[in-house]
Amino acid sequence: MALALAEAEAAAARGEVPVGAVVTDAEGRVLASAGNRVEELNDPSAHAEILAIRAAAAKTGSPRLTGCDLHVTLEPCPMCAQAISFARIRRLAFGAYDPKGGGVEHGPRIYHQTTCHHQPEVVGGVEERRAGDLLREFFRDRRPDRS
Amino acid sequence: MALALAEAEAAAARGEVPVGAVVTDAEGRVLASAGNRVEELNDPSAHAEILAIRAAAAKTGSPRLTGCDLHVTLEPCPMCAQAISFARIRRLAFGAYDPKGGGVEHGPRIYHQTTCHHQPEVVGGVEERRAGDLLREFFRDRRPDRS
Repeated sequence: MALALAEAEAAAARGEVPVGAVVTDAEGRVLASAGNRVEELNDPSAHAEILAIRAAAAKTGSPRLTGCDLHVTLEPCPMCAQAISFARIRRLAFGAYDPKGGGVEHGPRIYHQTTCHHQPEVVGGVEERRAGDLLREFFRDRRPDRS
Repeated sequence: MALALAEAEAAAARGEVPVGAVVTDAEGRVLASAGNRVEELNDPSAHAEILAIRAAAAKTGSPRLTGCDLHVTLEPCPMCAQAISFARIRRLAFGAYDPKGGGVEHGPRIYHQTTCHHQPEVVGGVEERRAGDLLREFFRDRRPDRS
């Protein structure tokens, strides 16, 4: 999660919502890491999780990352939650909870749907405070009128 | 939808699940079209809708395709449904309904969630039979033991 937090900090420095993600293999080795790049790439799907999964899948030569784990600083949105399922991620660890936009413990709760055919093991609240602080600082600095 | 069906046929010819998508601008001009490329690109997020949105957003130079429409041969999955929302697509037209994996009229019904902050207008069942026939033929041909 330390590397995911570093990716989130780097995203903030680029003016992106600070979220970072890391994919590790079954032995815990880092396959790929990424931060959010929606604005930079002009790509609404360029969330940290999608970019990390794409990079890890390209590296392993398969769209399925069976046995791999994903660590991300924020509860994944429904798009990323479903992508994590498609990628057959074994275990999802996330930092801050996201009641407004999350899709794992909030909203559609993707892994509880009958249309979801692979459910990762989920652990939420890992380094929750640091991950949440990064987001709060980012939005506070960008919206000074909303103190 | 004719172009989306052609993209779906081309995807089938590549050995991919036959789904095709097209993004048009406010005047109905084609901005981008794509077929499913999950296996070819080793990318679990490379659904037709995501690829078409990414290409259209790159072309317009913005991650938000405000005023644009998306036409796709199959009901979008939850990942794509959420990406369509993030892209601020004005109108989503889809072909076949997908009770097993769809996220618009089935499963999480993404646009009915409080975590979804932009809802496109949705029209389902456009050229439904042709879009569904393509999928049925594809799976019948690949699973001859399941006649």
